[in-house]
Amino acid sequence: MTEKKIRIIHYGLGPIGIETAKLVLRKTRMEIVGAVDIAPDKAGRDLGEILGLPERLNIPVSGDAKDLFRRVGADVVIHTASSRIRDIAPQLMEMVEAGLHVVSSSEELLFPMSENSKLLKDVHNLAVKRKVSVLGTGVNPGFVMDSLPLFLTGVCEEVESLRIERVVDAASRRYPLQKKVGAGMTEEEFRDKTSRKLMGHVGLVESLNLVAHHLGIPLDDVVETIDPVLAEKPVITAYFDLKKGDVAGIHHVARGIYKGEMPLLLVLDMYIGAPDPHDSIVIRGTPNIQMRIDGGVAGDQATAAVLVNTVPAVIAAKPGIVTVKDLPSPHFVR
Amino acid sequence: MTEKKIRIIHYGLGPIGIETAKLVLRKTRMEIVGAVDIAPDKAGRDLGEILGLPERLNIPVSGDAKDLFRRVGADVVIHTASSRIRDIAPQLMEMVEAGLHVVSSSEELLFPMSENSKLLKDVHNLAVKRKVSVLGTGVNPGFVMDSLPLFLTGVCEEVESLRIERVVDAASRRYPLQKKVGAGMTEEEFRDKTSRKLMGHVGLVESLNLVAHHLGIPLDDVVETIDPVLAEKPVITAYFDLKKGDVAGIHHVARGIYKGEMPLLLVLDMYIGAPDPHDSIVIRGTPNIQMRIDGGVAGDQATAAVLVNTVPAVIAAKPGIVTVKDLPSPHFVR
Repeated sequence: MTEKKIRIIHYGLGPIGIETAKLVLRKTRMEIVGAVDIAPDKAGRDLGEILGLPERLNIPVSGDAKDLFRRVGADVVIHTASSRIRDIAPQLMEMVEAGLHVVSSSEELLFPMSENSKLLKDVHNLAVKRKVSVLGTGVNPGFVMDSLPLFLTGVCEEVESLRIERVVDAASRRYPLQKKVGAGMTEEEFRDKTSRKLMGHVGLVESLNLVAHHLGIPLDDVVETIDPVLAEKPVITAYFDLKKGDVAGIHHVARGIYKGEMPLLLVLDMYIGAPDPHDSIVIRGTPNIQMRIDGGVAGDQATAAVLVNTVPAVIAAKPGIVTVKDLPSPHFVR
Repeated sequence: MTEKKIRIIHYGLGPIGIETAKLVLRKTRMEIVGAVDIAPDKAGRDLGEILGLPERLNIPVSGDAKDLFRRVGADVVIHTASSRIRDIAPQLMEMVEAGLHVVSSSEELLFPMSENSKLLKDVHNLAVKRKVSVLGTGVNPGFVMDSLPLFLTGVCEEVESLRIERVVDAASRRYPLQKKVGAGMTEEEFRDKTSRKLMGHVGLVESLNLVAHHLGIPLDDVVETIDPVLAEKPVITAYFDLKKGDVAGIHHVARGIYKGEMPLLLVLDMYIGAPDPHDSIVIRGTPNIQMRIDGGVAGDQATAAVLVNTVPAVIAAKPGIVTVKDLPSPHFVR
């Protein structure tokens, strides 16, 4: 059986974009037909070189998405360029205008709320018109703290509360993540940046709201706290040399409040030296469910995998901006 | 917002059917409009009485499905009447003929294979014509040993093998399950019944084939073994009084073989006194995933929950016979 391959354009060639493109090269049913990155050190070079491959792919990285979309026939854009919808809305417009489906790692696109939803109104309408689908997904948000817990509630007659916990040892991750969680800062710097809304994991509140929405819990309030985790002893990583008392990372909690109770609790710990990394989901309900993934679903590989494994389902989805809950659940695609 | 309720008919009022009907009564978006059971001790009685409720529901249990379908306007049949497709194919025809969607607990309907697929050809064609969907699902098969493992592979760049294990302490379950797994038999009886294909969990091979199909593993062979687990000491349950050496339950293994390797291994232990009940999934791949649900997703409550929580997705599914992998993953429905 010769099936037509799905033609992919990669938009954004940071660490996740690179990992994703390398994965697509191994998929029998997909092929890369183009790549975009606006960074001046990438545009114009061959994609093979950017991916660190020994061979050229004869795919020059374009600095002009609109022009690329005009020149190259494609089906799907895998978009790994930014977390914030205010930054990516114009990019999404160009993709949808060109009749391309989109799978994006944008954390805010998981479940666009309030202001973001307004920013996306034109994208949605045009996507419906062009019969293409636009999805935000990933591992977190997109899997371990939202769609997996929701999936597990499928075996519950009643659900009273969910406690979803993710512990990541930042020492095992790359430099940008260690920096993002505040490693190496003083506590004062961390608190100052937190007060200016510069710290915290984008997507945690989106996960909480996605879960609340589908469980039919009309939350009265969402309370978020972001605190530093301080090194209890000196720690040396590949990138940081922490003294005792330096910030090792973040303890980020989102609480969904309803009628004075807290039916939803999401706890995200990402710090250097975090013991016993894991993902856990505890559902109080009928029956109770207690799930745990030892080591946690960690790393850029898992994120790249979700993006790529979701491609066939996005093509088959209804047109417009969709969420992970609108699609058949993903699975490994060969 | 007043939403039209989904009108349900319950077909089969054994333990699972009863649990399911009681659950539907608590759902805000669903209502029971009819019930069918051909057992002479049930037909004609009020459903409330069959469910053990203090009040009447003014829904007489019908012994004639075809007649009920003609008289009552409904949307979905929740079917909990039999495991075997050869037994239920005529029942499914009647439902589909009446323009009703079907969610069935039939284990063989999870992923109809070979002979069963042929038996269902007319059902499928008529369902497409009548624009209704027919689904087989449940906890096992339908969730813990197939759709949950597949879901977890969604975060994998590569998948080499899956080991899926379910351990159920049969002492915690109702009499029919204890009997089904062979509790109280002699080893000789068990082996004799096994050789006559009367022992084993219907659905284990269906789970394996569903997983293999979606992971794109063209299995060369499926090797199934069924062995008794013998009581190591005397055990007394509510239903059985086991001597040392009596059969306590079953050890059922299905192996998917491909090119001399065993990429898929499903192990199901159900016996009285099984220590440490759990569901576990180990994926060897990139990354490795090691998941565990302490206590396991056990019991008729979980099965009833899956059937009911899947109802909205079945209504929205494409017409014909569908599988759990064609639908958005289920979640708790209020």
